[in-house]
Amino acid sequence: MAAPRYRVSVIGSGNWGSAIAKIVGENTAGNPNEFDLNVRMWVFEEMVDGKKLTETINSKHENVKYLPGIRLPDNVVAVPDLIDCVSGSDILVFNVPHQFLPRICSQLKGKIPATVRAVSCIKGVELSADGITLIATYITEQLGIYCGALSGANLAPEVAQEKFSETTIAYKIPNPADTISQKTIKALFHRPYFHVNVINDLAGVSLAGALKNIVALASGFVDGMDWGDNAKSAIIRRGLLEMTQFSREFFPESESSTFTEESCGIADVITSCAGGRNHKLGVAMIKTKKPVFELEELLLKGQKAQGVTTAQEVHAFLLKRGKTADFPLFTAVNDIIFNGLDSSALPRILEQVEIQVD
Amino acid sequence: MAAPRYRVSVIGSGNWGSAIAKIVGENTAGNPNEFDLNVRMWVFEEMVDGKKLTETINSKHENVKYLPGIRLPDNVVAVPDLIDCVSGSDILVFNVPHQFLPRICSQLKGKIPATVRAVSCIKGVELSADGITLIATYITEQLGIYCGALSGANLAPEVAQEKFSETTIAYKIPNPADTISQKTIKALFHRPYFHVNVINDLAGVSLAGALKNIVALASGFVDGMDWGDNAKSAIIRRGLLEMTQFSREFFPESESSTFTEESCGIADVITSCAGGRNHKLGVAMIKTKKPVFELEELLLKGQKAQGVTTAQEVHAFLLKRGKTADFPLFTAVNDIIFNGLDSSALPRILEQVEIQVD
Repeated sequence: MAAPRYRVSVIGSGNWGSAIAKIVGENTAGNPNEFDLNVRMWVFEEMVDGKKLTETINSKHENVKYLPGIRLPDNVVAVPDLIDCVSGSDILVFNVPHQFLPRICSQLKGKIPATVRAVSCIKGVELSADGITLIATYITEQLGIYCGALSGANLAPEVAQEKFSETTIAYKIPNPADTISQKTIKALFHRPYFHVNVINDLAGVSLAGALKNIVALASGFVDGMDWGDNAKSAIIRRGLLEMTQFSREFFPESESSTFTEESCGIADVITSCAGGRNHKLGVAMIKTKKPVFELEELLLKGQKAQGVTTAQEVHAFLLKRGKTADFPLFTAVNDIIFNGLDSSALPRILEQVEIQVD
Repeated sequence: MAAPRYRVSVIGSGNWGSAIAKIVGENTAGNPNEFDLNVRMWVFEEMVDGKKLTETINSKHENVKYLPGIRLPDNVVAVPDLIDCVSGSDILVFNVPHQFLPRICSQLKGKIPATVRAVSCIKGVELSADGITLIATYITEQLGIYCGALSGANLAPEVAQEKFSETTIAYKIPNPADTISQKTIKALFHRPYFHVNVINDLAGVSLAGALKNIVALASGFVDGMDWGDNAKSAIIRRGLLEMTQFSREFFPESESSTFTEESCGIADVITSCAGGRNHKLGVAMIKTKKPVFELEELLLKGQKAQGVTTAQEVHAFLLKRGKTADFPLFTAVNDIIFNGLDSSALPRILEQVEIQVD
């Protein structure tokens, strides 16, 4: 009997969705024994320059709106209908903006066989005072299929240009009978310019992608005060330890090494603190003393800096559990944004608690 | 009986030596029950503006030559004679340029009581194909006293200006009867702007301070190729893992967490890759294609970038043990500098080996 050839669909076609579809398309073409050649990519249909975006993508092999200038492989096929896109697929790759996920899941609910497997490239977690839901777990709960998570130091435009980067995929075989293995998942995503490490730790990978944004804000505060490279790396170090401790405390099955050794941890924190959106906002908050929401409008054209919401939600979560004192950096970031704390208090605040991770 | 009050001497008065003497002086003044007020600082005597440097320091309380613009505490006393400086001291802090250490040790040999304790702030290790000697171990062997090591993300001018930073001190109590404890050492160096963590791992702290320079060169190569933030953080991640693996393999008593969690590890690597001397040299090597020794002349006014020597020595060390393949990044850095390897080969080289640390 021939080995199965897995059909793959990518749900989403923003810049990150298109960059991932490009990678997946390159790999299905390169591994014909393992994967079906064509990769279907769900595109939210819209008119661009008087033409349907899906038609432009399928004729020009370029997502002219969201990833202009990058040629997509011919075997990546844009599909406007979500159900058409996933029908018959063995592996689903979710890569849509966070806020679109509930609607997509409700459309897919009950239509996906339980043997289908998924990987979410959507960063972060659902946080509230009541609890934390990993995005991948939400997909699993909604659709009844196992879902892993991909997260790393992956600025989409750099990945699309095939500049070197690494990523981490959490994918724990859900059923010993599965033929889709960690090796399959690696074969689907690994490229010479995009190195993949597959691990088991879903909670660690997911939390790292969310919590790093709080650290990026803090590193922006330090740069806003012109405190130099020593101070910035100290904040990154303390931030990474708080991320690790948070994950170990509330998801005891997670592992410290996910944060201290994997791309989704240490590397993504470094990249985010080098000049991402949250870092930029943190700098501006200190330099201009303007309110954060005004600066989001000014600097990010109304886009949200995820770190602000995450800092607030993490704070509410910790407050409800009486744990704010164990996370002095996270707590300080919230207090700097919302309660007028002076950022120059950071060293004094950090001095009082030595974070220990196990 | 009153508790002993330790006398402290700092051997060295360059910019880092003076910055550390300032810290130590602030702490002896702040802890009168634990330390003798006066801190003697050995100064290599020279004439500056027609006056002896020691006399200027003692009248102006400023090291006008090596740390201008920073006021030293009144209780830091410059002493030109090395033996005078250390006589009667209980704790010696070594902080001279690496190459002066043998002469200083030969002058002190046989003159230091075995109960004296020391901390070395001199970064790095003595590397040759035959073996590795930690600086602190060299001091112990030469003088017959225990010596710990201080290393962290500590650019001296920033520390002198009291900008926030953290450091790591390896200090393992050598004798259970010692009254000088890790707490004593912390009290001597910790400041509100200079946070100290004291651990046992002498080899890890010492190796981190040396090996990070190889990683800084590699990060410079990546920036020289304009590969962006993803690639740079990937190189930092891989570099930190190779540092950890090197230490664990050749000094099995060292600990992974020294690299992945302490200031001397992760934070110092980040700072060094943000724009230190080795990073700058790495960028210039790629951009100009000029030989490294010419660039050291041009960029560093003849000063050495430690990373070049360290890369070469580590390579010779690994070669002799047949271990180069296990350290692909270290090996590639040596080959890029000395054997004409094209730096764009880095992703392919790193792809072949997945570093595992325990």
